[in-house]
Amino acid sequence: MYLEKINKVGDIKKIPAEHYGALGQEIREFLIEKISRTGGHLGSNLGVVELTMALHLELNLPKDEIIWDVGHQSYTHKLLSGRKEGFDTLRMYGGMSGFPKRRESECDPFDTGHSSTSISAGLGLVKARDIKGEKRSIVSVIGDGSLTGGLAFEALNNAGKLDTNYIIILNDNKMSISENVGGIPKYLSSIRTSEGYLDLKDEVYRKVAGTSAGDSIVKNIRRAKNSFKSLMSPGMMFEEMGIVYLGPINGHDIAEMRKAIREAKRFKRAVMIHVVTEKGKGYEPAIRHPARFHGTGPFDIETGLPKKSSAVSWTNVFSTVMVKLGARNPRVCAVTAAMPDGTGLKRFYNAYPDRFFDVGIAEEHAVTFAAGLAAGGLIPVVAIYSSFLQRAYDQIIHDVCLQQLPVVFAVDRAGIVGNDGETHQGIFDLSFLSSIPGMTVCAPKNLWEFSDMLKFAVDLGKPVAIRYPRGPVYEGLEEFRCEITIGEAEWIYREEEIALFAVGSMVETAEKVRNELEKKGHKASIINARFVSPIDEDAIREAMRCHKLIVTLEENVRSGGFGERVLDFINREKLSDVGTDTRCLIISLPDEYVEHGDCGLLKKLTGIDADSVTERILEVI
Amino acid sequence: MYLEKINKVGDIKKIPAEHYGALGQEIREFLIEKISRTGGHLGSNLGVVELTMALHLELNLPKDEIIWDVGHQSYTHKLLSGRKEGFDTLRMYGGMSGFPKRRESECDPFDTGHSSTSISAGLGLVKARDIKGEKRSIVSVIGDGSLTGGLAFEALNNAGKLDTNYIIILNDNKMSISENVGGIPKYLSSIRTSEGYLDLKDEVYRKVAGTSAGDSIVKNIRRAKNSFKSLMSPGMMFEEMGIVYLGPINGHDIAEMRKAIREAKRFKRAVMIHVVTEKGKGYEPAIRHPARFHGTGPFDIETGLPKKSSAVSWTNVFSTVMVKLGARNPRVCAVTAAMPDGTGLKRFYNAYPDRFFDVGIAEEHAVTFAAGLAAGGLIPVVAIYSSFLQRAYDQIIHDVCLQQLPVVFAVDRAGIVGNDGETHQGIFDLSFLSSIPGMTVCAPKNLWEFSDMLKFAVDLGKPVAIRYPRGPVYEGLEEFRCEITIGEAEWIYREEEIALFAVGSMVETAEKVRNELEKKGHKASIINARFVSPIDEDAIREAMRCHKLIVTLEENVRSGGFGERVLDFINREKLSDVGTDTRCLIISLPDEYVEHGDCGLLKKLTGIDADSVTERILEVI
Repeated sequence: MYLEKINKVGDIKKIPAEHYGALGQEIREFLIEKISRTGGHLGSNLGVVELTMALHLELNLPKDEIIWDVGHQSYTHKLLSGRKEGFDTLRMYGGMSGFPKRRESECDPFDTGHSSTSISAGLGLVKARDIKGEKRSIVSVIGDGSLTGGLAFEALNNAGKLDTNYIIILNDNKMSISENVGGIPKYLSSIRTSEGYLDLKDEVYRKVAGTSAGDSIVKNIRRAKNSFKSLMSPGMMFEEMGIVYLGPINGHDIAEMRKAIREAKRFKRAVMIHVVTEKGKGYEPAIRHPARFHGTGPFDIETGLPKKSSAVSWTNVFSTVMVKLGARNPRVCAVTAAMPDGTGLKRFYNAYPDRFFDVGIAEEHAVTFAAGLAAGGLIPVVAIYSSFLQRAYDQIIHDVCLQQLPVVFAVDRAGIVGNDGETHQGIFDLSFLSSIPGMTVCAPKNLWEFSDMLKFAVDLGKPVAIRYPRGPVYEGLEEFRCEITIGEAEWIYREEEIALFAVGSMVETAEKVRNELEKKGHKASIINARFVSPIDEDAIREAMRCHKLIVTLEENVRSGGFGERVLDFINREKLSDVGTDTRCLIISLPDEYVEHGDCGLLKKLTGIDADSVTERILEVI
Repeated sequence: MYLEKINKVGDIKKIPAEHYGALGQEIREFLIEKISRTGGHLGSNLGVVELTMALHLELNLPKDEIIWDVGHQSYTHKLLSGRKEGFDTLRMYGGMSGFPKRRESECDPFDTGHSSTSISAGLGLVKARDIKGEKRSIVSVIGDGSLTGGLAFEALNNAGKLDTNYIIILNDNKMSISENVGGIPKYLSSIRTSEGYLDLKDEVYRKVAGTSAGDSIVKNIRRAKNSFKSLMSPGMMFEEMGIVYLGPINGHDIAEMRKAIREAKRFKRAVMIHVVTEKGKGYEPAIRHPARFHGTGPFDIETGLPKKSSAVSWTNVFSTVMVKLGARNPRVCAVTAAMPDGTGLKRFYNAYPDRFFDVGIAEEHAVTFAAGLAAGGLIPVVAIYSSFLQRAYDQIIHDVCLQQLPVVFAVDRAGIVGNDGETHQGIFDLSFLSSIPGMTVCAPKNLWEFSDMLKFAVDLGKPVAIRYPRGPVYEGLEEFRCEITIGEAEWIYREEEIALFAVGSMVETAEKVRNELEKKGHKASIINARFVSPIDEDAIREAMRCHKLIVTLEENVRSGGFGERVLDFINREKLSDVGTDTRCLIISLPDEYVEHGDCGLLKKLTGIDADSVTERILEVI
């Protein structure tokens, strides 16, 4: 009734204030109805309906700019900026993205996807605005979970010295995807109730007093400077960094938020408005199961249950095997960066809470912390999605591999991930991991090999990464199961014409390709690479002896990937023995970002599905 | 006199307390004398003499463990743990490293080199200790500069929930390499003088009151929760995160520090001891010129002047050209992560202070902030050393290249850097940068081309990285200067047998190789690659037509580098035209970490100097 009047940005300003409640209700119903069909992020979006309305009411978009941290909570923003129709194609190939996109709307000033970028980007936009002498408001909306990421802190440290207006909305819903961890969330929670805050202070002083040194500490160390008293604002920590703090404010009270935004605009400083929201507000199942409704597939609105029961996933297998490995070896421990559910490590946590570490949205710390655990004699398994592991590239080089510490990287969501799109595709890990000296990189072909490979990795005694995809685990080729030895590939079928040398998920594809080729009268061997670094040079030599074409297959960009490594080796062989005439065809993802859409469709479009591969081989054979 | 009694770890405990002053003096003289001859880090080491003595007196090394953040301040630690002789070979090939190394001493529990890792690693060691049921103290020593890095903050956030002993020494010398920036350093400074602290608070409230909204903010927004008063300790910010704070303490008073360490040990919590030190203490030139004496070459002790005046460096050229580019285009701005001196951007700052941004030790923020500047219509040039840029890998992928924002990366210290060793060699950038879709990667052959390339980059309108080495700029081949066009290589000499296809610094090497080959009766063309991404396919095709061997040359690891890209293209050409028989030889650094030592020697040892390359070519031709 009111939503239908909103067809472009600014239309919300025509709705009388007394109907905001009704509009908010309509937006919630719209989002629940649409997402129940397409899937998408629900909980975070239901939480920021009123906040988004307040921002659209107080700002002049697109002149003023909002940067949504992570960006999965931008659905109401998309609705209010004229993208209602997009929800029918949400996260589908060619359809509307689930994240802000500059190319989608002039109301999206900066693309997001990974966490904790919005304050850095906001500061950049602010400085550009001032240098160009423009006048407009720039607002970054960041969740309390994202605030535990180091990038956000680096930005806050810089925001503290700002002498111009910039507004940060701290959207505090007490959650990352799962529960938050650490000192900052504890601090925010203390702000939310002043009793709580006092409790925390009391606790600190009680612990000081509880030690035998207590009195002397208070008396001797803190001395003169510890005794002055000061007016204490709830956001003192931010004010100490030089940021004006306003709040906490009820994030479902539009009038109160509008007032705060108006007031925040008047400072020639960075201003943080602390807004408290409820994740999933207005839909009981999303409130009760925040992790499940963070990102969801299609679901039944009545019951909140997923529409189709999902098959056993690679993550499920990881989850199960980790519990077994934890039982077998008390030195095995597990590290996650705010993803106990997504990575499947929750079961490990339930079984061995003392050996489980959720460090918050802090991939870099996760990796260097794991290096510390390993230096201390433990065997940490760090489970991080491929695209987020990019955050810890230097820590892998510098803190783990340089010291050859036995850290196991469980690289989940490697390859095409589908609907989350460009920012979340795990298509670079083979390249960036396998160029790191001392890093072993491997990928399993199926369920059983994954289990064996995890055991192998935990026993290896040096850095190793296992990459595996999103979605259902491959249960074929069960009969091919042999011991895992570092750097050794596995011959599955031995023929004499074409050698399909496939990495991980592409072994399944290679099987299909082999069948297709057979129909066309060609014979193909299949070699399961298992290891991308080090590569199995003997297997390649053997393949060169009796095949006229070696085809490498990987779900990774071409540049720096498995194919180039194999080709480099073949070339070196040829340099010493000119007679060899085996040719090499590299099948990989193109050196491009891959849009959102159905995984099967994306594989076809990028030329790594069985049909495309077969066709390509037939062209060159 | 006292120093000679210290030959192994623990020997310091035999020195009577009344001689600590004399010992400290001897240590300073020893360090100044040794470093004046070998070069090395001086200022930071002179600052922590007493702190290190206090730690060695209170701890039982190697059972107890100290992690030195960055690690360049570990010289006194090396002295006191029995490595006195190492100082004669400090930072030389095969000699003692300038950083902590596990393989060098059991008193070094964790290697460092890059900033802000020590708290993460320390927390890992603490958890490992507890899980294994061991009892010992673990201490991380971190500078105030390193504390502005996001990784340190992620770790502090996790330290706040610790229920076991862990000691963090905040070594506050008011400096990174240059002046510190941002809210945290300002906060630390406020702690150092309580007047200062009160001033900051006053200022905040004065600014609030200075706006028309002032009163209403104080009254309406902060409401009930803003009015309670609280005991305010100087380190409240850390205590709010759950970390016990002790200090500030005089970092040159051994007795006071020992007492604090003893007291800190009693808490079952993370404890921060805030120690205030003077960088360069005891040597006037180092106090007066902190940036120059951060890391220095050999110098004259009397005058503090460098022993040899250095030649014009690549960095000098960058510095000069940036000032010109800033004049030519008011949209050009510059970003550095705590390296205004090292990157040469100080001159840009002096010329255009409003368009210069030093963000602190915060490479990730530097990149995402630059993305924001670019999204706002400016052209930021981000100057970061190659090995530190690894920190911002995800930000380059996710915030810059995905949106195709015109950010220019000036990748200084690319290739072998010499004495700082493994952690600082810039040997991965060609691999990690050129596998990022939409990133243009280039490298200049000499002074003039560098200048032209910077102009080209600023005008390009999309992401571009220029990598250039440490040390003197190449001033040869002046006569070869032609316009820079994206993806176009430059033919320098055209012959018909061997094609030397060289990247950046390796063009100079290729010249020498060409001369050597000529002596042996072989003819070699030289192609200056200029671009590593996109590569010049036409040039390769042309080279294939009239050369029997294409040799690629790069100062980068092999995996994912320029050679593999060229080889991949040659292979694709051959797949469509089997007749071609040009062979390809890839010359690169091996896929290994490269130790510290003289650059020339390291190049020889890694096989990329002219002699080694010539020999390799003669083997395969």
